[in-house]
Amino acid sequence: MTAPAATQSLKLAVLQYSARDETPDQRLQWLDDILRGAKDAPFGLVVCPELFLSGYNVGRKLSDLSQTQRGSFAVSAAELARNHRTALVYGYPETADGQLYNSAIVIDSSGRQLANHRKLRIPNGFERDWFTPGGNYTMLEIAGFRIALLICYDVEFPEAVRACALAGADLILAPTALRAEWSFVARKLIPARAFENGVFLAYANYCGQENGFVYLGESCIIGPDGREIARAGADETLLTAVLQRNDIARARERLPYLEDRGDLDRVAIDGRTAPLS
Amino acid sequence: MTAPAATQSLKLAVLQYSARDETPDQRLQWLDDILRGAKDAPFGLVVCPELFLSGYNVGRKLSDLSQTQRGSFAVSAAELARNHRTALVYGYPETADGQLYNSAIVIDSSGRQLANHRKLRIPNGFERDWFTPGGNYTMLEIAGFRIALLICYDVEFPEAVRACALAGADLILAPTALRAEWSFVARKLIPARAFENGVFLAYANYCGQENGFVYLGESCIIGPDGREIARAGADETLLTAVLQRNDIARARERLPYLEDRGDLDRVAIDGRTAPLS
Repeated sequence: MTAPAATQSLKLAVLQYSARDETPDQRLQWLDDILRGAKDAPFGLVVCPELFLSGYNVGRKLSDLSQTQRGSFAVSAAELARNHRTALVYGYPETADGQLYNSAIVIDSSGRQLANHRKLRIPNGFERDWFTPGGNYTMLEIAGFRIALLICYDVEFPEAVRACALAGADLILAPTALRAEWSFVARKLIPARAFENGVFLAYANYCGQENGFVYLGESCIIGPDGREIARAGADETLLTAVLQRNDIARARERLPYLEDRGDLDRVAIDGRTAPLS
Repeated sequence: MTAPAATQSLKLAVLQYSARDETPDQRLQWLDDILRGAKDAPFGLVVCPELFLSGYNVGRKLSDLSQTQRGSFAVSAAELARNHRTALVYGYPETADGQLYNSAIVIDSSGRQLANHRKLRIPNGFERDWFTPGGNYTMLEIAGFRIALLICYDVEFPEAVRACALAGADLILAPTALRAEWSFVARKLIPARAFENGVFLAYANYCGQENGFVYLGESCIIGPDGREIARAGADETLLTAVLQRNDIARARERLPYLEDRGDLDRVAIDGRTAPLS
């Protein structure tokens, strides 16, 4: 007899930051303080909101505070990740090739950059005045979990999460900045995305107010069966969960959407091939 | 000045039938009684559950009671539709070409058959012992509403509802037989499907028990903004709503998912093209 394979697990933390007028250094200090005070630390992975470096509804600060992938904030964040022995994900305004991107970076617990994702779909509104959309899905691996990054609006599209799940994602990380009027997204759409693909999903939002925007809070960690493993309220908080990778196979055995979907996106309608643009 | 165009509206009824051992004739009689007693009648469209003719978890009755598209049940249902001046949708086990299909038929208020949809995705379990999957999406039009049919498991796939929405559907009709253990589907997945496509969705389920299956009830009518316009409990009931077609444009203007999705299903992952099968 051989021993059963060890169960792969990942201790995940989602940080819900209360929006306020802080400098990038003050935000890093806040992050450092939170992680030092967390009784469950160290974590395998910590996820912060969209544009955590600068804030979201901050006008030209998006450009003024933008940095390259190897800028000073990334250097300090790498040191923080090493000190706290955790992988780290946060959003920031990225300068590259003369463009501005709404990006999120992944740093592992040794301080090494694993991936940089550029938001694929820029929603109508002020973001289109600033950001160029990215052109690729982003996959990486931490502790045996295959992870995809999708920022805010990206994760609302079923095509995006499906593409990542079909490419092998176990866990979707979604830094976001969701306003209170879009509560449907946090409460129903995000759990549906996890359920319909049999993946874990971590949704890291802001709470509080920022220049007239009221954020919803309600960050969450959803299981591959759609269960709310952890759910924040409207206050600043750190959500934690230990994800068991085996839960993915169990959910997909019970409900094999990925297997059963087949060619549904190429089925004919009245003799025409769908989807039609 | 020209008068504003008349608002297109559709008075919809969703019938939640309490599963029991009744003959096809008894089921038609029940339908006749319900519609005669409904204070809101006449309706523009009435939707009954999946396999309404035979029952769902009824073993070889699925085959024994099966009929062709022009069988005696369809003839009686057409007369009923004429008498009640309503279009009518119901599920039935269809015999055709030596195969058995899990189908739903649409009859207009004059008794004419408008469409016949064959379930595209047969879920794992007893259904695969009986049914051959269909091969086409089905679109039709009633009172200016473009309507697509999807049966039970079909509507759980984001690809299916997206394909119908991109082909112009305003309203998705989903006869179903959902067991209590899948409450996530009725409560979150179905509203998400309407929201993410900006379409109305009518979900007609069973309640009660049938040979060991406990059905959820919780049939619903969802708006294109994800709102629960009507929601049943666990008892037999008739849900009604007047759908305003203008609400679709309003929802899509606020949240243009269909426009913004672009080529998300063909974006590259690490140099590969997603989705990968």
